[in-house]
Amino acid sequence: MPINVAIIGAGRIANVHAGAIRSNPEARLVAVADALSSAAETFAQKWGCAARATASIAADPEIEAVLICTPTDTHADLIETFGKAGKHTFCEKPVDLDIGRAREVVAAAEAAGAKLMLGFNRRFDPHFRAVREAIEAGRIGRVEMVTITSRDPGAPDIAYASRSGGIFRDMTIHDLDMARFLFGEDPVTVSAHASVLVEPRLAEIGDFDSATVILETASGKQAVISNSRRASYGYDQRIEVHGSKGVVSAENQRAVAIEVGDEDGYHRPPLLNFFMTRYTAAYAAEIAAFIASIAGNSPPEPSGEDGVTALRLAEACSRSVTERRRVCLDEVE
Amino acid sequence: MPINVAIIGAGRIANVHAGAIRSNPEARLVAVADALSSAAETFAQKWGCAARATASIAADPEIEAVLICTPTDTHADLIETFGKAGKHTFCEKPVDLDIGRAREVVAAAEAAGAKLMLGFNRRFDPHFRAVREAIEAGRIGRVEMVTITSRDPGAPDIAYASRSGGIFRDMTIHDLDMARFLFGEDPVTVSAHASVLVEPRLAEIGDFDSATVILETASGKQAVISNSRRASYGYDQRIEVHGSKGVVSAENQRAVAIEVGDEDGYHRPPLLNFFMTRYTAAYAAEIAAFIASIAGNSPPEPSGEDGVTALRLAEACSRSVTERRRVCLDEVE
Amino acid sequence: MPINVAIIGAGRIANVHAGAIRSNPEARLVAVADALSSAAETFAQKWGCAARATASIAADPEIEAVLICTPTDTHADLIETFGKAGKHTFCEKPVDLDIGRAREVVAAAEAAGAKLMLGFNRRFDPHFRAVREAIEAGRIGRVEMVTITSRDPGAPDIAYASRSGGIFRDMTIHDLDMARFLFGEDPVTVSAHASVLVEPRLAEIGDFDSATVILETASGKQAVISNSRRASYGYDQRIEVHGSKGVVSAENQRAVAIEVGDEDGYHRPPLLNFFMTRYTAAYAAEIAAFIASIAGNSPPEPSGEDGVTALRLAEACSRSVTERRRVCLDEVE
Amino acid sequence: MPINVAIIGAGRIANVHAGAIRSNPEARLVAVADALSSAAETFAQKWGCAARATASIAADPEIEAVLICTPTDTHADLIETFGKAGKHTFCEKPVDLDIGRAREVVAAAEAAGAKLMLGFNRRFDPHFRAVREAIEAGRIGRVEMVTITSRDPGAPDIAYASRSGGIFRDMTIHDLDMARFLFGEDPVTVSAHASVLVEPRLAEIGDFDSATVILETASGKQAVISNSRRASYGYDQRIEVHGSKGVVSAENQRAVAIEVGDEDGYHRPPLLNFFMTRYTAAYAAEIAAFIASIAGNSPPEPSGEDGVTALRLAEACSRSVTERRRVCLDEVE
Repeated sequence: MPINVAIIGAGRIANVHAGAIRSNPEARLVAVADALSSAAETFAQKWGCAARATASIAADPEIEAVLICTPTDTHADLIETFGKAGKHTFCEKPVDLDIGRAREVVAAAEAAGAKLMLGFNRRFDPHFRAVREAIEAGRIGRVEMVTITSRDPGAPDIAYASRSGGIFRDMTIHDLDMARFLFGEDPVTVSAHASVLVEPRLAEIGDFDSATVILETASGKQAVISNSRRASYGYDQRIEVHGSKGVVSAENQRAVAIEVGDEDGYHRPPLLNFFMTRYTAAYAAEIAAFIASIAGNSPPEPSGEDGVTALRLAEACSRSVTERRRVCLDEVE
Repeated sequence: MPINVAIIGAGRIANVHAGAIRSNPEARLVAVADALSSAAETFAQKWGCAARATASIAADPEIEAVLICTPTDTHADLIETFGKAGKHTFCEKPVDLDIGRAREVVAAAEAAGAKLMLGFNRRFDPHFRAVREAIEAGRIGRVEMVTITSRDPGAPDIAYASRSGGIFRDMTIHDLDMARFLFGEDPVTVSAHASVLVEPRLAEIGDFDSATVILETASGKQAVISNSRRASYGYDQRIEVHGSKGVVSAENQRAVAIEVGDEDGYHRPPLLNFFMTRYTAAYAAEIAAFIASIAGNSPPEPSGEDGVTALRLAEACSRSVTERRRVCLDEVE
Repeated sequence: MPINVAIIGAGRIANVHAGAIRSNPEARLVAVADALSSAAETFAQKWGCAARATASIAADPEIEAVLICTPTDTHADLIETFGKAGKHTFCEKPVDLDIGRAREVVAAAEAAGAKLMLGFNRRFDPHFRAVREAIEAGRIGRVEMVTITSRDPGAPDIAYASRSGGIFRDMTIHDLDMARFLFGEDPVTVSAHASVLVEPRLAEIGDFDSATVILETASGKQAVISNSRRASYGYDQRIEVHGSKGVVSAENQRAVAIEVGDEDGYHRPPLLNFFMTRYTAAYAAEIAAFIASIAGNSPPEPSGEDGVTALRLAEACSRSVTERRRVCLDEVE
Repeated sequence: MPINVAIIGAGRIANVHAGAIRSNPEARLVAVADALSSAAETFAQKWGCAARATASIAADPEIEAVLICTPTDTHADLIETFGKAGKHTFCEKPVDLDIGRAREVVAAAEAAGAKLMLGFNRRFDPHFRAVREAIEAGRIGRVEMVTITSRDPGAPDIAYASRSGGIFRDMTIHDLDMARFLFGEDPVTVSAHASVLVEPRLAEIGDFDSATVILETASGKQAVISNSRRASYGYDQRIEVHGSKGVVSAENQRAVAIEVGDEDGYHRPPLLNFFMTRYTAAYAAEIAAFIASIAGNSPPEPSGEDGVTALRLAEACSRSVTERRRVCLDEVE
């Protein structure tokens, strides 16, 4: 029997996940809820499911799993609601901008025996996953230094940015989780620098658009993250891991692998420049993993706890910039 | 209203096309026929359509389009049957091993006013298509020399090979069509060499596994095709077009874009090594183009005529090897 | 004791070789001769050697080795002169446009017990040499198919072309020798196509600027050569060898290995676009090999015989184009 | 008239520079000095110059320029000696491990009107120079983020390391200078992390083998340096500069540009793994620039002042690690 799934939120990413559910024989999309009822109706029609109220979904014993695709400030309450209702929940990152609140709802879901999976989709990118598999296969020996380059094609609009919790919680958080995924060990100290080079209005709201972060683990492994809200050449998403016996890296992605040579030189197309296109396979694999963890009753990964740790690292980055010093993860809560 | 489609043949490629139909909102798979009724039943169940007899499909006024996915020696008769019945037909290559018969059924389909599209899927590969778009955009000036490298991961089994018409009609035919696609002009002369280096049993049936072909057009453009039934490193599929102002090429494809460096050097994974995986996007785009040509009532491309020309070029290659000389396309039929 | 060397001819390539002699501790440049005495004087001054007459060099028992860097139509006579004089001779390709005459002087040099080495510099390119070493190390198994792409940045001037013996003897000859170098076996049949796409005046003198050649050996190995007298993107010099266990290729060369990404895509510089810059290392290694063969009294490679075989293959290409058929090497002389 | 040059020190790098002098028509190597007279004699014989005492070189009015190629702890005294003697001096980095002393001798050389150039050879690498030229040509807009990856093939021996001033003054100093070269602006703050992952004995002497550094300029530009004393895959030397309109990068270098494909994938050779091989062209260009600055009476670049700034940045890195905080360059002296 396929698992009945509801989606909360009817926006862009909800549509991506609905497509993943449809192509997954083990799941069936049965309901959608959205604060805007017309959006829910359109979505319901498009995907052949019912538009319902959140409370009604929570109360429906036929619905086993919920995907939370709403704005960040609603995540914690929804996780709580569905956790209490015993639903297995997948939630887009971050859990909440407040770490205490995030911890609370993650603990509540756990207490209720409901699975909670966080939407760090990049863990499911086939290229990044192949990097981790190469590490696990021992191809580079012991991991020593991780380099993550992550640059958005352009700056977010100010309205979005002002509710996002800042670059570290909104953008770097993906890379902080990726560093943990590749280290196989938690960072214990953080140094960060940040500035405004792209969009001056971000300075007005106390945010940044260009950031560099060093993470260090107890055993001395180091990671560096390079973030920019600008990349004229596409969506720049690369990782490299240097180890005691070698190095493994994942290249950027293009729509087509052609090259033109002429008197000015050799030219390849720009990178894929939109996160949904770049991470199409990752989104599908992520939802498949969530469904599989329910079907197989295995712990979901990344977990709610992974979401809390990434948040704490983001908070440590913020403090490092503000206080101009290295911050220990222990200091954060 | 979506177009009702039937598939003749329930094998591997039929399943690929069924997937393409399912994800196409303008088409609906309604029926399947297969010489083996159990195969048709399984297929029908899997894809939610009816298993029917070929004649019944041909007679059904509700069915507008047919995909022929059966063995080569049935193609001509099926094209004829469905052409007479006024169905729009998509047929896997080749039309027939006999050029006269191929011409006949192509003409018959045309006379009946039914569209006929040939399955030269590589024209729809996004990378190869981007090569042609670069040419059309004038990025390399006038086309002068085309290089096509096409190597299968392994030799076909002898039973298949002995019914295939030989390497030129079975394998090279794709590259002959590709050369035409890139030239924008028909070859007029052909020189070919062929030998058996991979699978000695091919020599026993008069076939080859390694071949090199030169095509030349009336204006002196040259193409070279390099074929092998062996490529330990994957499914080697590359094209390069050199023109008066530059060169454009399409690289091989891999499942993941990672690289490992160690004391032995830098290592990337082998190529995708199966035609269905390598050309996934091409197959989907090909079927979409067929449906679109029906919906928009535009001529299908590649046409039945394209299929005949490719066959004639394949025949010219065979004669060139046998007669150890350059063969004019005019000599063939 | 370093070997005393004289250079005949004071042009461009003579200067390249003089530099190679200077940096070689086992050789010393002692004399130069040139039909134009002022050119010889300038050269002598620049390189610190004596400007002398050819006959005087031939008669000088102190001079052990001679490099012939004069126009093609003087090669045979000079090889003969120096061979009779017992000098070890290095000669730029080709030996002579007439195969009979070439055979004659090669035989004469051999009879005199003097070494004769031919200037197929590409055999000494470190990248191409590494390709052959990979083959010899068994990394690709048995050689099956060789692909040589060789495109000049621009067409030669007509005066030069009209004395050059045509594209096959002047340009393709390098690639014919390279195919032999990589095959480890001689071609027995040849098919060639050629046309004029670049420089219409070449048609007036019966020459071509665009050519494609297939070579086949007795065991069925195939090579394809793609030549053009045009490559807007630089000097295009690539080889690829496909074998029973793998493939090995050598990439083109650039002056600097940088890449720029911007909103139009990713851009690398054009190729090195001059044969002397592209093959700097090859020229130096070639002369070093000549000197070493004298010092170590080992047979020079490529030999005069290699020069004759390459000429015969070039002649076979010409005939193939003219007679529109496959030509056996046996038919040539 | 060529400039007469003396070399102090007869070791490995002295030999590299002697070769550069020999091939430079504007310079002539006339003398060498070394603490070990037999080393000086051997060197003198090899390069055709005189073995002399340092004082005698300093006193010789015929000698205009001196290259200091001795151990670090002798640099400052020698710069002082030759500065007072009015010689133009090229000195390998660093000037001195003590910043005060370094400042002193740089000032003294300047007061004496003698040129002083520092051996940051990487500024002369053709690939890195092409990166800077691309920046200067406006191809990437305003520089925003610089990424420098610099990994040695292996750890230094402990005896060397213990006199080297530690990883930041010995190894990172090159990258600190490179960041300035690419920024076109001085860093004002520094954060560094360092650990021992490769060679445990380095911990015993208070040194590190793995380090990550962030540099930030007053305008908010950021650079990150990734250093390791290990790279099994060769000598890893890459730079990347991200700007407002694009990105430019320089790739690693290999001896040969071949690739082998087989059933395990595609394989390229390891990187050049020795700094003298990797930076051959850079060393030659560096010495040529020094000679040209004397011949043309232009200020040498990198200057003694550049050497002092790089030292101060290295000191800031050390303090950042020790004090676990961001350090301002202003705090250092």
